[in-house]
Amino acid sequence: MSLSIKDHEIDIVIGALRSDLTSFMSEWRPIFSRFHLIIVKDPDLKEELKIPEGFNLDVYKKPDIDCVVGTSTSTIFSGYSCRYFGYLVSRKKYIISVDDDCYPAKDNKGILVDAVAQHITNLTTPATPFFFNTLYDPFTEGADFVRGYPFSLRSGVQCALSCGLWLNLAHYDAPTQALKPEERNSRYVDAVLTVPARSLMPISGINIAFNQEVIGPALLPSLRLGGEGKFRWETMEDIWSGMCVKVACDHLGLGVKTGMPYVWRNDRGDAIASLRKEWEGVKLMEEVVPFFQSVRLPREATTTEDCVAEVANVVKEQLGSKDPIFARAAKAMVDWVMLWKSVGSSTSSPGA
Amino acid sequence: MSLSIKDHEIDIVIGALRSDLTSFMSEWRPIFSRFHLIIVKDPDLKEELKIPEGFNLDVYKKPDIDCVVGTSTSTIFSGYSCRYFGYLVSRKKYIISVDDDCYPAKDNKGILVDAVAQHITNLTTPATPFFFNTLYDPFTEGADFVRGYPFSLRSGVQCALSCGLWLNLAHYDAPTQALKPEERNSRYVDAVLTVPARSLMPISGINIAFNQEVIGPALLPSLRLGGEGKFRWETMEDIWSGMCVKVACDHLGLGVKTGMPYVWRNDRGDAIASLRKEWEGVKLMEEVVPFFQSVRLPREATTTEDCVAEVANVVKEQLGSKDPIFARAAKAMVDWVMLWKSVGSSTSSPGA
Repeated sequence: MSLSIKDHEIDIVIGALRSDLTSFMSEWRPIFSRFHLIIVKDPDLKEELKIPEGFNLDVYKKPDIDCVVGTSTSTIFSGYSCRYFGYLVSRKKYIISVDDDCYPAKDNKGILVDAVAQHITNLTTPATPFFFNTLYDPFTEGADFVRGYPFSLRSGVQCALSCGLWLNLAHYDAPTQALKPEERNSRYVDAVLTVPARSLMPISGINIAFNQEVIGPALLPSLRLGGEGKFRWETMEDIWSGMCVKVACDHLGLGVKTGMPYVWRNDRGDAIASLRKEWEGVKLMEEVVPFFQSVRLPREATTTEDCVAEVANVVKEQLGSKDPIFARAAKAMVDWVMLWKSVGSSTSSPGA
Repeated sequence: MSLSIKDHEIDIVIGALRSDLTSFMSEWRPIFSRFHLIIVKDPDLKEELKIPEGFNLDVYKKPDIDCVVGTSTSTIFSGYSCRYFGYLVSRKKYIISVDDDCYPAKDNKGILVDAVAQHITNLTTPATPFFFNTLYDPFTEGADFVRGYPFSLRSGVQCALSCGLWLNLAHYDAPTQALKPEERNSRYVDAVLTVPARSLMPISGINIAFNQEVIGPALLPSLRLGGEGKFRWETMEDIWSGMCVKVACDHLGLGVKTGMPYVWRNDRGDAIASLRKEWEGVKLMEEVVPFFQSVRLPREATTTEDCVAEVANVVKEQLGSKDPIFARAAKAMVDWVMLWKSVGSSTSSPGA
């Protein structure tokens, strides 16, 4: 893949939940240094950010966020959701986002994984959501469509979202993590695949990339747990947003891929201490999954903005009475589409 | 996994399209020798079979087939379809079937893959067709369900079919193989996954295993190409049968897994010489896939036999007029269900 022509089309968005980004940035330097970075500081974080020299970046802090969206709206960007501010102000075609506790991984042969290159390959080659290819991604070098794959489906569709994976600390909820405190993910699966149409999945925000032009507005902060904290397993915003993205992609005929690239995820947090908070998210999924599995969007929804607004309507209608958290999520989705349209048409200027 | 308790519940079915099975059986000896084997000789094959000593096996030849099903029916078992006779007469719970040009593969670490053990693990652990788990099979050692996976779906469903893969000669159709004569599959993907419900795939007969008690009657010989020959890429019987199996599994709430185990597939045949024949199969898929994607079975279909009969009805109704090959396939499916019921209630006795 020739990446060079696309370097200027890529923003790497980092939500900073920790103040000292020295080791994070240093580890990623070989991969990130030729791209433009957007770093958004969690507005709840008091200490000054420590960022090493030598990167092309813009940093957004609470005053910058307040300035762009107003102080009443800026609360939606606290904690892990701070990255969504980066999505909002980016003007690039492709966005890549990695949690600040993840470092570059090595593949099965011990070679450093270029997560950016793999995400961009995933996004710039077609996805195949309408028929499953048993040899995984047919556009990978050395692979193709297997016998029996209809030729009319081989051109595939545009890929909107690339979901990467992680080694070391697996991506469990707090109850599972608490039950298996020693379990680490050491399985490097050398594959990328398209998640079939109408099949839902729990999309994580840990390591993702997307085509902002086609699906940008569906990556949004909207479902916020009551006791949401600063550990991934205490959040649901990415899972909820992922459901919206997948439903929108299915409706618009776009693809979602999962698999490589991997990142190395460091241990962080105390699962047992998080257990109390996490159950709320775990319980909500029992409502959320059947809901999104049954959502069908009207033919008139032809843009991602339309899809998000339609999903918000049905959330309010069908889930609104079950738990106030859903009514708030629906409102946040409608607000986000408006914010997206208004900020999208203006120009942002970072304060740092 | 403790396999020992299940050894007597397994039949390994081999369709012999070549007379000399010496190297095939010798390579598989470390894995196959503790199981019962059913070898079905392609009724078109004239030479005597050469089979090394030391296996627990039954061999079925043309006279045995004629004796069980009658001379008019025995033609359905020619070529690759001979294995279906083995499925018909087996009385075991699990059937594993591997093409006679496939040998045991080695994994990424150079260790011999026990294809039987992996298939049985796939079949005896639950499948998860209703929500995609991004870390692949949650029942693999060292894996689990990721954050956001609903707890109510974590028990999964019974797995009915395990589709293995192959290294070396990839599984392309003749046109693709002819375009890429040098391409070999060298990517060993260390994963098993459940193919999501309502998502179809081209299931190959090269390396599969299934739970005969729950899905047996859906693995059937029915779609036979006019110029069908003795190379995989000249056949469609397995792809068609795989569509029936998947539709039946989706309807009955059963799972289908794909991925490991791998086998090593040897080069065989001349793709360019097969091109003329293959186009028929390639063209048919353009009708076959949309058809199976739209089939919905009635609530009254509660057994695999019911599902096959229902699919046969709809094939006749919707595809019958498009190509006589479909009307013949529909009839063959109905005949198969009757044959399955009649042979299933009798006892077979092989001639060798």
